[in-house]
Amino acid sequence: MLIVKKFGGSSVANKERIFNVASRCVEDYKAGHDVVVVLSAMGDTTDELIALAQDINPNPKKRELDMLMATGEQVSVSLMAMAMHSMDVPAVSLNAFQVQMHSTSRYGNARFKRIDKDRIMHELDSRKIVIVTGFQGINKYDDVTTLGRGGSDTTAVALAAALHADKCEIYTDVDGVYTADPRVVKNAMKLNEVTYDEMLELASLGAKVLHNRSVEMAKKYGVELVVRSSLNRSEGTVIKEKAKMEKMLITGVAADVNTARISVIGVEDKPGTAFRIFNTLAKNNINVDIILQSVGRDGTKDISFTVSQDDLKDAMNVLEEHKEALTIQQITNNPNVAKISVIGAGMMSNPGVAARMFESLYNSRININMISTSEIRITVLVDEKDVDKAMNAVHDGFIMTE
Amino acid sequence: MLIVKKFGGSSVANKERIFNVASRCVEDYKAGHDVVVVLSAMGDTTDELIALAQDINPNPKKRELDMLMATGEQVSVSLMAMAMHSMDVPAVSLNAFQVQMHSTSRYGNARFKRIDKDRIMHELDSRKIVIVTGFQGINKYDDVTTLGRGGSDTTAVALAAALHADKCEIYTDVDGVYTADPRVVKNAMKLNEVTYDEMLELASLGAKVLHNRSVEMAKKYGVELVVRSSLNRSEGTVIKEKAKMEKMLITGVAADVNTARISVIGVEDKPGTAFRIFNTLAKNNINVDIILQSVGRDGTKDISFTVSQDDLKDAMNVLEEHKEALTIQQITNNPNVAKISVIGAGMMSNPGVAARMFESLYNSRININMISTSEIRITVLVDEKDVDKAMNAVHDGFIMTE
Repeated sequence: MLIVKKFGGSSVANKERIFNVASRCVEDYKAGHDVVVVLSAMGDTTDELIALAQDINPNPKKRELDMLMATGEQVSVSLMAMAMHSMDVPAVSLNAFQVQMHSTSRYGNARFKRIDKDRIMHELDSRKIVIVTGFQGINKYDDVTTLGRGGSDTTAVALAAALHADKCEIYTDVDGVYTADPRVVKNAMKLNEVTYDEMLELASLGAKVLHNRSVEMAKKYGVELVVRSSLNRSEGTVIKEKAKMEKMLITGVAADVNTARISVIGVEDKPGTAFRIFNTLAKNNINVDIILQSVGRDGTKDISFTVSQDDLKDAMNVLEEHKEALTIQQITNNPNVAKISVIGAGMMSNPGVAARMFESLYNSRININMISTSEIRITVLVDEKDVDKAMNAVHDGFIMTE
Repeated sequence: MLIVKKFGGSSVANKERIFNVASRCVEDYKAGHDVVVVLSAMGDTTDELIALAQDINPNPKKRELDMLMATGEQVSVSLMAMAMHSMDVPAVSLNAFQVQMHSTSRYGNARFKRIDKDRIMHELDSRKIVIVTGFQGINKYDDVTTLGRGGSDTTAVALAAALHADKCEIYTDVDGVYTADPRVVKNAMKLNEVTYDEMLELASLGAKVLHNRSVEMAKKYGVELVVRSSLNRSEGTVIKEKAKMEKMLITGVAADVNTARISVIGVEDKPGTAFRIFNTLAKNNINVDIILQSVGRDGTKDISFTVSQDDLKDAMNVLEEHKEALTIQQITNNPNVAKISVIGAGMMSNPGVAARMFESLYNSRININMISTSEIRITVLVDEKDVDKAMNAVHDGFIMTE
């Protein structure tokens, strides 16, 4: 079996943890498997390198920042190889140049285009554990790129896809994927299996277990993912195309508090008005999420939508600037709202899910601002102060009553 | 003019020094020159990385150690590029992969085979300062190699040769090459020019201004070297094929205290005996320097020679082991000796140099153990305790009486 194993920065933060990771990899190796290990930079190295750069130049060019940051993973992989050697296990470290991990040119946020597998296969064939730098690639200019935060997950999945790995294990400091954030919802349960689509919805709603792009890539190439803890032997959560049907309507409940609501009031009720508003926002790189449109009076209408809190100020500025052209009479906003979502492939064939969700919220006296649905997700907007209560109410309404 | 400028680790040890180096490079750039900068790792980075490795594995494989150490220079070059950018000067950092600095395969002590100039020329043509990682190469396996201590000097010279640079400036923390170590000999004087051969003799005798291999390469490719200080504007010392004839018989006086003497006593006085002794030592990687052979009694002879103090123990073990086969009756050693050398192309045509050297030593009551000469060098072996006195005596005997 060919196994790709990815460990984050906290898993290799010191000597003891490096040897812990080495042991887990060597176990699989000694069981006869081919093992490819993907590592992030040790502990806070990446943040320290960024601080070092900003001390020299508060606004460093991304090309040079990537050149600098890529050293972090190179330190991790060479030390890991040394740890394995001290356990008398053959191992070799490789960086993005050596593997030839081709990416797009965009510094700081590159995407993989093509990964050569020759070098890795050659090393695996000579029965070495192969340790690869996560988070980085090389572009068509032969320059170093990085993939953005969480990029090492993507490296692991991309390698698993290129090598046709049998398994891609993502090690974190949690046991797996839960039905809700265990720090908020005390009855949260670990899931044994989820589908790619469910995981994508969970991830995009703030369940920070996996980087979204890595799940998308795993889905595209059919790479079976396992999320598990580097600290214990728990089985973790398997993410794949079709998860085993468990007796739950829903897979999980997620909250996203990084949400703000904007309402534009009294715009002309003519075809194209909404398009022009959202097009103006899009041109300014502002992502709009849930949209609610209501008929107003006198041939006008009101449109409400959510943006991330980070984008609120920009969005307000853009709208004020184009207020007249967009026929807006008034703009209001609420920076303190949160999205609560239930996710689950089971809800497609069950029309009662929405009703049960609203009932749970009503029973807890939580006011619903807006509603949005997809095939496997129902999202409601609540006040930020209600978010923990709402999470527990919705979670217990589904998971505990099964 | 195309200028290659090399700065060592202490010259880029902190923000202030990085900007100092950046300024000196930008000055040349703004004067219209093409500038290539070679950097070592910041301050003590290399030693810190070695300590990090040895904490994981006391005996790390050199391949992985090179992979680890190469990150040090990559940090320096990217930070330097950021510093230049903050001064609004176009600059780009390149590592050994990006330049394609091909080396032999030997990890920890590689030598350059071929350096591609396309990428650097392309960047220079678009009027950028090019900042290259010193000390490292890539071998035929596409693996990272390092050149051994002082390797960044060699990188600078190799680049200057490949690019047909007009000048190769090596910046250090001293003003240039002196007639003797200024910390020992108070009358030491800075030289304006020396020949490659003189510099090689000086360097091999412990004048640690330049790495020997870099001088050899400069001689081979006719690269004109300048050794100067990164801390002031002093002109420095030019090293080239033919130095201007100064009115001095000798160029400098150097001492090497890392020397031990071994004597093998009562070996058979037959052809091949000496050869077999030195061949046995060579096979065990022990370098022998000055050799003195004297006729003994009863068809035997005594042979004395020097080795570096680091090799003394190994040399004694090897000789003891082969004592019988080598027909040695007795082995003695003195670990505390030092070599004092006078160097200078001028002495070839002047038979009085040796006499004057011995006279100076005699006047200072310093005992001479052994003598060795080359065309441009006379070396004597003295007791280690006499070395500073001997240096001053010999130096003043030549330099001050001109």
